[in-house]
Amino acid sequence: MKNIPVVMIIFGGSGDLAHRKLYPALFNLYEQGLIRDNFAVIATARRPWTHEYLRGQIADAVHETHTEVNENDLADFTQHFYYQSHDVTNVGHYETLKELAQELDDRYSAQGNRIFYLAMAPRFFGTIATHLNDQHLTSSGFNRIVVEKPFGHELASAEKLNQQITASFAEDDIFRIDHYLGKEMVQNILPMRFTNPLIKNVWNNSEIKNIQVTLAERLGVEARGGYYDTSGALRDMVQNHIFQIVTLLAMPEPKDLNASSIHEAKQELLAGLIIPSEAEIAQHFVRGQYLGSDTTFGYLQEANVAEDSATETFVAGEMKFKNGPIANVPIYFRTGKELKEKKTRIDIVLKHRSNPYGQAHSNNITLIVDPNMEIYITINGKKISQTGIRRENLDYNFSKDELAEVPDGYERLLHDVFVNDSTNFTHWSELQAYWKFIDAIESAWQKADQAGQKPAQYLPYRMGPKEADQIFERPTEHWIYE
Amino acid sequence: MKNIPVVMIIFGGSGDLAHRKLYPALFNLYEQGLIRDNFAVIATARRPWTHEYLRGQIADAVHETHTEVNENDLADFTQHFYYQSHDVTNVGHYETLKELAQELDDRYSAQGNRIFYLAMAPRFFGTIATHLNDQHLTSSGFNRIVVEKPFGHELASAEKLNQQITASFAEDDIFRIDHYLGKEMVQNILPMRFTNPLIKNVWNNSEIKNIQVTLAERLGVEARGGYYDTSGALRDMVQNHIFQIVTLLAMPEPKDLNASSIHEAKQELLAGLIIPSEAEIAQHFVRGQYLGSDTTFGYLQEANVAEDSATETFVAGEMKFKNGPIANVPIYFRTGKELKEKKTRIDIVLKHRSNPYGQAHSNNITLIVDPNMEIYITINGKKISQTGIRRENLDYNFSKDELAEVPDGYERLLHDVFVNDSTNFTHWSELQAYWKFIDAIESAWQKADQAGQKPAQYLPYRMGPKEADQIFERPTEHWIYE
Repeated sequence: MKNIPVVMIIFGGSGDLAHRKLYPALFNLYEQGLIRDNFAVIATARRPWTHEYLRGQIADAVHETHTEVNENDLADFTQHFYYQSHDVTNVGHYETLKELAQELDDRYSAQGNRIFYLAMAPRFFGTIATHLNDQHLTSSGFNRIVVEKPFGHELASAEKLNQQITASFAEDDIFRIDHYLGKEMVQNILPMRFTNPLIKNVWNNSEIKNIQVTLAERLGVEARGGYYDTSGALRDMVQNHIFQIVTLLAMPEPKDLNASSIHEAKQELLAGLIIPSEAEIAQHFVRGQYLGSDTTFGYLQEANVAEDSATETFVAGEMKFKNGPIANVPIYFRTGKELKEKKTRIDIVLKHRSNPYGQAHSNNITLIVDPNMEIYITINGKKISQTGIRRENLDYNFSKDELAEVPDGYERLLHDVFVNDSTNFTHWSELQAYWKFIDAIESAWQKADQAGQKPAQYLPYRMGPKEADQIFERPTEHWIYE
Repeated sequence: MKNIPVVMIIFGGSGDLAHRKLYPALFNLYEQGLIRDNFAVIATARRPWTHEYLRGQIADAVHETHTEVNENDLADFTQHFYYQSHDVTNVGHYETLKELAQELDDRYSAQGNRIFYLAMAPRFFGTIATHLNDQHLTSSGFNRIVVEKPFGHELASAEKLNQQITASFAEDDIFRIDHYLGKEMVQNILPMRFTNPLIKNVWNNSEIKNIQVTLAERLGVEARGGYYDTSGALRDMVQNHIFQIVTLLAMPEPKDLNASSIHEAKQELLAGLIIPSEAEIAQHFVRGQYLGSDTTFGYLQEANVAEDSATETFVAGEMKFKNGPIANVPIYFRTGKELKEKKTRIDIVLKHRSNPYGQAHSNNITLIVDPNMEIYITINGKKISQTGIRRENLDYNFSKDELAEVPDGYERLLHDVFVNDSTNFTHWSELQAYWKFIDAIESAWQKADQAGQKPAQYLPYRMGPKEADQIFERPTEHWIYE
């Protein structure tokens, strides 16, 4: 693996994401030799840390996430890290940062390559982007920027943020990260769809009845009540993770595996994303809020949540496309907090076909993304020793060794940033389509709020409000995962 | 379950098949109540057994095949059995048999129903059938005859035997038994094919590249050398078991599940069975004989085998049909003695399709019939943590409880004879088609013999002669099971 020369600047270097995900991932990439002698990382945040304190933090982060660590390598690795106290609103600080970056570039022969990683609260993304441009932080080599979610709060603010970033960075150099696209099973969707005639043959709107995407969380809002109350499940999970998964499920076959071909196929699909009418939203969308229990707070009792908040902690709804192989097939989705268990799964439900055996069960293809990867196909078989039909699950059991091999999504995606592979990042045109859809729902809900309607309430640790079982287009449809 | 009144007459009542299979199966059907108060069984054979000795044998047979036995039921059950010493060539003996049957019919109120079961050496089938007719053994109720394999030695002798039987029995009352049709996984073929859109969609000659049926035995000819040397693998296994399996794999969808509809669909298929030319036989068929080893005899050294015998203990070949959903798809088969392991399996190999990932593996559907039932589908998936493609087997694991529920094929098929369901028996028109095919191969091999050619030799406990790897139509084809 080639050693990529680069100076990386992390905004939010003292934060949780950097500690839990970025530093351990960078160490793994260092161990693999992708970054080795010619890299330096500047971690910035407001706190007055020293380089040594940062390096101690990084060593801790690596130890916390690894069962075995080569201590010599770790010691060498941490020496590539530098801390710079930085107020993102202070123009002068960018000057200092630029000088440090240039100094480290010289010291490590980084060839003028820069990666800027925006890993802090999203309200600062625009400010940082603006000052990166004003203060000419980009250098003479490659200049890439990685932006965490959420990218905007609605289409308008996303467009503004995008303008701020594109002032310094070309679209191909902007890596809008969604860690769901780094998940092994999500990356398996396209190979599964396109390399298997058995699956490809039914992946069309003659054979698929509906698709169901569930992204359930067991936890509540925890300490994030303040932020969450301004966001809600639709913006927090649907606008990014669920839309990314749905796009992979519904897109046409790309002509090859180049990032540009994949983005082209996604754009082709998203050009036909159907924006539902208010009547359709009323019928096929449900928002919910979790209630309390003897031992847990309801959403409205959580810290930093408005006591009359209409923010949804659960949403179920429907997406459809005018084009692509499954044009007009309902794609139902659900996501929420305090649901039965942590589970991300995709169920592809095939249509019934008349057959000499009378009513048989639907054939389903199920991909479980989290927490434990699984693939299974539900088919009909003969009841043992009888003449009737029963369901049989044909499943692939990932071995412990295989599961141990699965890299963290951040490691994979950081790798892709280093090697300039934007396949698994969100293109601006995709994001625009997603926001248009989200804005339509939010707008309908605002009107509902004004009419005095409230989110449906649901008991914690079940599968959301009972209203979510009524969103289907046809009476024969129901959630496969209950 | 209704209690079927009947007097059953078993020819070959002291034999191995009756002991190991028929008596235990009848006991199970008795325990289920299918036969209860109104049945009697006359076991006939040449030996001078008494009723009591027979009943002791039957009790032994039940104990040998059951872990738990209700002894009261068993004692009651055996009281329904009667022994009649019988020389099948002695006309007078049929008169005695007829009188005993009538006496038992009266005693058990069997309503004039008769089942005749031909469970002895096939050379006597014609004689028995002739005398059943001459001596008017059929009675006033239903009259059914069950005939073990082989049904004839080639088409001509099968036709003669059929004439002898049809003198007394209508086609619908003739149950030509093939215990492979009683196997759970074989009975699963049609439900799997027709109730699963996922499978049905690829079950055609655009998608299936070839089908492979392997019926491997680990044992040699053992004590059956004398009989086997007059038969060979083609007549012993292909003419019945393999053809039955292939017919289920290739037949069109029946309009319903009535026995007549299923036989109609089979006949429709078999009308298009392609009889290979001598040139095709030379190219796509291989016959073999097993060699000896340090501890085992080669076939030519086995007891009662001619030392220059050309009888095959292995055959690999190809079947094709002009019609049905997989018209012109090569169906390759193999069967033989002293192969790697006992294994009956069916591999459906799908065609490769071009895809953005380049060369992927074929999708296969595999049904393992013996010794342990398995269903799996081989698909492509993403290599863990890498970008390449690998194979994944999605499999259904039958639980121990499920496997314990599987009835023996004979129990199932005897049940079907009692309830007059001929679905899983061989119709005369099927048999004719099978024999026409077999005769063509035998005839080509006779010519080869006359030209001094010999079967290919193969080492014991492998997968047959290496020539069997060369029978395919296309260089991209190979045996999936090796």
